[in-house]
Amino acid sequence: MGAAKGRTQADLFAERQREISVSEFFSKNRHLLGFDNPKKALMTAVKEAVDNSLDACEEAGILPEVWVDLSAVDGREDRFLVSVTDNGPGIAKSQVAKIFGKLLYGSKFHRLKQSRGQQGIGISAAGMYGLLTTGKSTRILSRTSPTMPAKYYEVQMDTRKNEPLILAEQEIEWRDHTGTQVQIVLEGVFQRGRQSVDEYLYQTAMANPHVTIHYRAPDRKKKEWIRATEEMPPEPREIKPHPYGVELGVLIRMLKDTKSRTLAGFLKEEFSRVSPKVAREICDGARLYVNARPKRIAHREVEALYKSVNDTRIMRPPTDCLSPIGAEAIEESLKRLDPEFVAAVTRPPEVYRGNPFQIEVGVAYGIKNADLDTPVQLMRFANKVPLLYQRGGCATTQAVTETAWRSYGLSQSRGSLPYGPAVITVHMASVWVPFTSESKEAVAHYPEIIKEIRLGLQECGRKLSIHLSRKKKAREVLRKRTYIERYLPHVVIGLREVLGFGEAESARLMNNLQEILGSPPPGIGDDEEETAGTGSLEDDTENAGDDEPRATNKREIA
Amino acid sequence: MGAAKGRTQADLFAERQREISVSEFFSKNRHLLGFDNPKKALMTAVKEAVDNSLDACEEAGILPEVWVDLSAVDGREDRFLVSVTDNGPGIAKSQVAKIFGKLLYGSKFHRLKQSRGQQGIGISAAGMYGLLTTGKSTRILSRTSPTMPAKYYEVQMDTRKNEPLILAEQEIEWRDHTGTQVQIVLEGVFQRGRQSVDEYLYQTAMANPHVTIHYRAPDRKKKEWIRATEEMPPEPREIKPHPYGVELGVLIRMLKDTKSRTLAGFLKEEFSRVSPKVAREICDGARLYVNARPKRIAHREVEALYKSVNDTRIMRPPTDCLSPIGAEAIEESLKRLDPEFVAAVTRPPEVYRGNPFQIEVGVAYGIKNADLDTPVQLMRFANKVPLLYQRGGCATTQAVTETAWRSYGLSQSRGSLPYGPAVITVHMASVWVPFTSESKEAVAHYPEIIKEIRLGLQECGRKLSIHLSRKKKAREVLRKRTYIERYLPHVVIGLREVLGFGEAESARLMNNLQEILGSPPPGIGDDEEETAGTGSLEDDTENAGDDEPRATNKREIA
Repeated sequence: MGAAKGRTQADLFAERQREISVSEFFSKNRHLLGFDNPKKALMTAVKEAVDNSLDACEEAGILPEVWVDLSAVDGREDRFLVSVTDNGPGIAKSQVAKIFGKLLYGSKFHRLKQSRGQQGIGISAAGMYGLLTTGKSTRILSRTSPTMPAKYYEVQMDTRKNEPLILAEQEIEWRDHTGTQVQIVLEGVFQRGRQSVDEYLYQTAMANPHVTIHYRAPDRKKKEWIRATEEMPPEPREIKPHPYGVELGVLIRMLKDTKSRTLAGFLKEEFSRVSPKVAREICDGARLYVNARPKRIAHREVEALYKSVNDTRIMRPPTDCLSPIGAEAIEESLKRLDPEFVAAVTRPPEVYRGNPFQIEVGVAYGIKNADLDTPVQLMRFANKVPLLYQRGGCATTQAVTETAWRSYGLSQSRGSLPYGPAVITVHMASVWVPFTSESKEAVAHYPEIIKEIRLGLQECGRKLSIHLSRKKKAREVLRKRTYIERYLPHVVIGLREVLGFGEAESARLMNNLQEILGSPPPGIGDDEEETAGTGSLEDDTENAGDDEPRATNKREIA
Repeated sequence: MGAAKGRTQADLFAERQREISVSEFFSKNRHLLGFDNPKKALMTAVKEAVDNSLDACEEAGILPEVWVDLSAVDGREDRFLVSVTDNGPGIAKSQVAKIFGKLLYGSKFHRLKQSRGQQGIGISAAGMYGLLTTGKSTRILSRTSPTMPAKYYEVQMDTRKNEPLILAEQEIEWRDHTGTQVQIVLEGVFQRGRQSVDEYLYQTAMANPHVTIHYRAPDRKKKEWIRATEEMPPEPREIKPHPYGVELGVLIRMLKDTKSRTLAGFLKEEFSRVSPKVAREICDGARLYVNARPKRIAHREVEALYKSVNDTRIMRPPTDCLSPIGAEAIEESLKRLDPEFVAAVTRPPEVYRGNPFQIEVGVAYGIKNADLDTPVQLMRFANKVPLLYQRGGCATTQAVTETAWRSYGLSQSRGSLPYGPAVITVHMASVWVPFTSESKEAVAHYPEIIKEIRLGLQECGRKLSIHLSRKKKAREVLRKRTYIERYLPHVVIGLREVLGFGEAESARLMNNLQEILGSPPPGIGDDEEETAGTGSLEDDTENAGDDEPRATNKREIA
């Protein structure tokens, strides 16, 4: 069939095979990178630029200050200039083109250290999206030293090759200190509210109290979030992979590639937490010599080595590669919402697939003006970046819905978020956050991660429960007091009749009884209004039951 | 800060920047490709191999026959040899290594034509996963002609470079006709039931009635699906992109790259459905000369051209690039489930973002032994491939849950799948199925697509509704008949008493009345059992109401 002149069908088909560049792939599959629709595209572009700015500042030890400016282009409602400026270290000339004009290029993928970016896709994808939808280049301003002039670049991506093109490059007058400015023109839709640029910036400020953000929206309205602390978060350190996280195939390749000349040396050099003693144990377990040449180890032997690694007790990976927000900072951020109660917890670091991670949970309750009959607001963060999309597909959401909030005093339907005037924040910090997609919107469902989140939620939940039951008790006491006080005169009348007291004696008795009752605990009266406000969280039947006898008694006495 | 000897921080950071290969990216993010966990990994590997086999056979005009063999390796329960063999055209020597050892390599990405594979990732990702988890190479057997010897290859991927390594290559004795065999050893978990290899193969056979599949599971149990038709589906043709689907940035690049020397020529050459007349209209609309040199068109002019393209009435794209299953074939497949009713519809082709697509819907109702109190079974297909995961995130699911099934006689809670002993199948055929992830598990929520699915569901729903109401009516008639027959003797007794009939006259009267009543419509009696079975779909209160007077009448007569 069609195999003329000795050529087979397979030969004919062979001619059609071609390499696909990763940028061709992602430009056809842009929804994978968060550019599904114009509204989300605008938010994603801002997010990628701001995340990069914050990473760069922190790595350079600079307290980050970021200016975000969105403006309509040519008065159109579907095209925006996104401009993000920072006070970071600037970007070296040799790197500008690749960072902004090439997908899968960056410094964060190959190392194990907490950072916002990890894949080397974000900002170049934003530029690619801008180019595709408006034909405009990405413009970059960068100053890397106060003693050297700033430079201006125009960069485009050649999507067929995933290689950058530099269209312009020149020295330029720009400010007197270091920093970077990125400008992208793209098709977008500007909206405020849920999943907007505004929400992203607001939540970013919440999770990064050391950051100052200046924001100007397309309607030229300004907003600012000024840093709440001058203290930089501790700079996370880079670590080596932990032996428990390595896979057989990777181990085989590492053994081939290593410069170490002995197996024990290899284990100590390439992994974290492998002491000479541990290295010996691993080798013994695999029946291999500590001095064996790594390159000479046969496939069967590597399998034994792999097994031995996982059978040997090895210390957990170091955790200075992580930089949590801190329970105190989370509480401070939540207090800005003006709640009646806050609690936050930073869990001890844990490990999934050899990757250290750490969970932080915060709860703010009794937020004024919050709707009582809606689910609590869940804010999700990964490496201090807000996650605004795909809430349903996120491990954090699963952990929150699986937690038994009724036992902490919140109402909840099975498998849903709890209800109430509350905000719950969950932060996962890790050297490698397992996102469910490249657009980094949801955390994958690793049992280890879900368990940690749940423990954090429970810790906060218990504190919330104490607060709520104290509140309930105080309300109860107040109600009983009011109750007794109301009938005290009747009691006195009764006693007077039975014992034949005079007016004066009755008055003294009344005073004495009131004294015994004591004055109401301070503040309870002030609480009354809020108490009423949280009524829907209580067990209504119980209240209804309590009301009944009161009405009956009244009638009996009257 | 750290800027010793004239080197800036930016220079220091520059040294850490590196290119990331797409295979490094995906090996760290393997859940994006469907290798989240060992059970899914096994299914995904089989799926990728079988999809490739079917595509290759159909392109070569060969009725596909596929052998799938899973076997445990070294008696382990977590390691399997996946072997998939086909009777396709084989693979040319020059292509074997890249097809199996390089991600983003293939013939299907750059063309517009319906096929199962589209990204050039699947089978090489399966091999990469096997290598990572077991260290074993992918083994390939291929014969491209009965007159040439078969060849055997062992291929691995160098994930750091995304380049293939050939470890072995030799001629070998293997069968006498063309074909390909792929063998991958990987870490997996074998289970039957939902989302298993079994389900994938079963649904594949349903959507591809021209395919024969032989399957042997790790427990050595065999199963076969023999083709129901010898007729090949029409081979889809490749088309050019439609002007409505092009983006500004792409248009700019195309103008730069084209070999056409005039603008009108460019439009006619590079796009489908652009006649000389349409080309002139587009140029006029943009105030550009038809003879303008494409490479000389300025940015502003391209914007005008882009606008004009979208303002011009252009015929829909050709649809011979699509190959639907066909309503008849879908009905035949559904009949294998032994239902009391089937209906299927193939919708006319439609367009989203310039891409032609076509929706097919099938409904089978009254499946024996199906659970009444569970949601209907929804089978989703994209380009004849079953989609087993991420049902919740799929456009097809949204369309089914949004359809008002109550009006067609099925019970349904708001926003849920309808209930009943039924199967609903939805197939989307397109030159480019917009999947929500590279693992190709769910169709993205394009309004045009959801609308078409809904129209298809409604068409089938109306037919189902006629069937169900006919059935209800028939049951009603039967019930009334039974009712009258039961009381006929009493009527005759009454008449006899009133009119003073003798025994003989009474018998004749009885006969006459029975004759007037007529014999029951054929088949109604047979239905009785099933009718009872579908009772839960009926309005129970109505039935209860009807029962009441019967009981009362009885008492009155007795």
